[in-house]
Amino acid sequence: MKVGTPKGTRDFLPEVARKREHIYNTIKKHFKLFGFQPIETPAMENLSTLTGKYGEEGDRLIFKILNSGDFLGKANEEAYTNKDSQKITSSISEKALRYDLTVPFARFVVQHQNDLTFPFKRYQIQPVWRADRPQKGRYREFYQCDADVVGSESLWYEVELVMLFDRVLSDLNLPGFTIKINNRKVLTGLAELIGQPDKIVDFTVALDKLDKIGKEKVIEEMIQRGIDPDALNKVDPIFFLPGDNDARLEVMKELLKDSEIGLKGIEELEFIVNNAKDGGLTNATIALDFTLARGLDYYTGAIFEVAAHDVQIGSICGGGRYDDLTGVFGMKGLSGVGISFGADRIYDVMESLDLFPTDTAIQTQVLVANLDEKYAGKNFGLSVVLRNAGISCVFYPEVAKLKKQMKYADANKIPFVILGGEAEWESGDLSIKNMTTGEQQQLNQLTLIDYLKQNGLG
Amino acid sequence: MKVGTPKGTRDFLPEVARKREHIYNTIKKHFKLFGFQPIETPAMENLSTLTGKYGEEGDRLIFKILNSGDFLGKANEEAYTNKDSQKITSSISEKALRYDLTVPFARFVVQHQNDLTFPFKRYQIQPVWRADRPQKGRYREFYQCDADVVGSESLWYEVELVMLFDRVLSDLNLPGFTIKINNRKVLTGLAELIGQPDKIVDFTVALDKLDKIGKEKVIEEMIQRGIDPDALNKVDPIFFLPGDNDARLEVMKELLKDSEIGLKGIEELEFIVNNAKDGGLTNATIALDFTLARGLDYYTGAIFEVAAHDVQIGSICGGGRYDDLTGVFGMKGLSGVGISFGADRIYDVMESLDLFPTDTAIQTQVLVANLDEKYAGKNFGLSVVLRNAGISCVFYPEVAKLKKQMKYADANKIPFVILGGEAEWESGDLSIKNMTTGEQQQLNQLTLIDYLKQNGLG
Repeated sequence: MKVGTPKGTRDFLPEVARKREHIYNTIKKHFKLFGFQPIETPAMENLSTLTGKYGEEGDRLIFKILNSGDFLGKANEEAYTNKDSQKITSSISEKALRYDLTVPFARFVVQHQNDLTFPFKRYQIQPVWRADRPQKGRYREFYQCDADVVGSESLWYEVELVMLFDRVLSDLNLPGFTIKINNRKVLTGLAELIGQPDKIVDFTVALDKLDKIGKEKVIEEMIQRGIDPDALNKVDPIFFLPGDNDARLEVMKELLKDSEIGLKGIEELEFIVNNAKDGGLTNATIALDFTLARGLDYYTGAIFEVAAHDVQIGSICGGGRYDDLTGVFGMKGLSGVGISFGADRIYDVMESLDLFPTDTAIQTQVLVANLDEKYAGKNFGLSVVLRNAGISCVFYPEVAKLKKQMKYADANKIPFVILGGEAEWESGDLSIKNMTTGEQQQLNQLTLIDYLKQNGLG
Repeated sequence: MKVGTPKGTRDFLPEVARKREHIYNTIKKHFKLFGFQPIETPAMENLSTLTGKYGEEGDRLIFKILNSGDFLGKANEEAYTNKDSQKITSSISEKALRYDLTVPFARFVVQHQNDLTFPFKRYQIQPVWRADRPQKGRYREFYQCDADVVGSESLWYEVELVMLFDRVLSDLNLPGFTIKINNRKVLTGLAELIGQPDKIVDFTVALDKLDKIGKEKVIEEMIQRGIDPDALNKVDPIFFLPGDNDARLEVMKELLKDSEIGLKGIEELEFIVNNAKDGGLTNATIALDFTLARGLDYYTGAIFEVAAHDVQIGSICGGGRYDDLTGVFGMKGLSGVGISFGADRIYDVMESLDLFPTDTAIQTQVLVANLDEKYAGKNFGLSVVLRNAGISCVFYPEVAKLKKQMKYADANKIPFVILGGEAEWESGDLSIKNMTTGEQQQLNQLTLIDYLKQNGLG
């Protein structure tokens, strides 16, 4: 029998599981401080809830669950006769694994609207599944950590979310990261300016390459993508934006002076940037980036993306404002804004910059050795006393050679070993070995816990 | 469009999600104290990993995932022609959702054996899925919270696991619960005694009804189930067991005096009960129960089951010793013992006995009201300062009527509201309203955090 996990999925061994937990706990701590409330939705949704929400490609990548029982008996006959795998799916599968946390959240809000108070701030930390081709850094099962607020158009939430990025990533010790901010309204304004609203994605995708390939080649690509060359003259300043956020805003204000919606976008950006700065950012740098087009068919206001400095790994967080998330489920006009932390990518950044606190390597603090059958009960009892005092410990379950027991402590990175054989228990003074320094000392059983607590345990 | 979750699955709203988190966190805390290490396995396993591990009924109840792409093109032709849903499954589905945490753990241990140190103590808290018919208290998605140790036959682990039941459930405030303990070897001894080893399940299932239906009817059922009436005379004392554990052990010792394996079972039970008692139990009662046959085709030594007092809900935890969990994946002779906490059932017990701490109802501690556009920045800034001090708070995002903002605090069970309008900010003394007592007072902005901390916040 082949022993392994399905392609694109992973087991997590204890040290990795602890590091991941450290990330989740840090994110959760700040979600709570910011007043977001936890919710959970099931791994499975009705297939009809998910279908059509992620585009054609997305529909293909949703994992479908086979109906139970005699599913072929209820299969669509035409599709069955034609062996049409795509057409037959909805007749043999009525459930699917969630593809993200956003669509299930929209379904949740509509379903439970009478039990919620708006504006409703929720967080959700759960895995999602995508039948993507697995590759480095891309998995078929991964966690999303989302915070969203729905039921208000207030820009103060955008400010809060920028600060939330800062607080979480700074608390995780990321020394530097850039929160890129754009606004869909600014892009709409630019599209008005070039007179080709349908080309706004092509325009921003090409513009995004400015730093890498230069103005000439960007314009070449834009023209290739069907943008009117004459129109490009009107947006010329966008190729020469200054680095500073305030200066950028001034250039854009001038550029978009005839676009009502464009100016509204600029005004919103100013509000967000200024108030986030006033709120005080720890390690974050804010950068206005008018090429940011993330989820453009979806976001209607602010667009966020976060990149870590010193690591080439793509964006580690994202988010934005959407005006009609729940419309598709029959609840119109509910505006929302949300962000998502990519825990797997953050993990990779932290690993490559060596940012995990050393204590994520340690879970069990003490090994109580088992040296003498006659004193096994006493040593077991000691392990109970230590746990009662809040100290995590294991009792070695068999009388074995000391060397073997020490090796066990080493392999499990247990920092202290307590040795109690006949001599020790008769005298009442137990030996305690510090596995980090190698130092060994005798301590009375009554002072043992104090000693361990002084060493930061418990 | 129908808006809902699939049958047998649930959404969790914030208050319930927080209560569930309280259960998981308490379990996790004690798992860690006892030196169990966290692992995670993927929601999906290869179908071949799961098939055949849970009996025929179990195989049927595993949720299978439909292969991507042109799965019908690769379907088993014979099954396709015959419309045989059962036969076709393995050719159109190669993955499935995990059905429990035990089989994935066995697969994990075999796969990662070179990276683990034995005895390996692991815990795992993850959802599992079963295509069971949903009914009260039985869901298609539910959490299991498992602790297992593999690679040792030491009975000290059985003692630890009994204490772990006690510590977790006592810490969750369960006032009374019984840990029922049996041993497979005792049942084997009884089967030897009646001379019908194949009837041991029938024997225990019938015996289990002794309290309810009395000896006569139990014997009637046993005979109906094919047990030799003459053999029953040999086990007569089992119908008149005393209540006390020590006395029970004496009766069984006499009864099984000619069965080597039976006596071994009794000896193990004595060791576990005596040492757990010496270790000190908080709220647990231990009861030897020789009718406990849970997972009999699976357990080879100790068998555990826990029932809460004062609630009719079935068992809330279970577990036992198994001698060959990993054999099916090619790793023989690895003994293990483990237990599982049924978080959903524990939740129901705690809810019905009103055992959740009151603070699970509260997440956000302060609402900073928004009374005056001119002072919105100041009030938002105050929310930042409070969060920096570790106090969870929300800023009301729009200038709205005070009544509406108070209602929002009430609905979200936020215990304090801070009111800063023009008068307050100009004087530097802000109003703070205790939503529990209704009391309102003026406090200088500089002493506000001290006041909140004195009230247990942050």
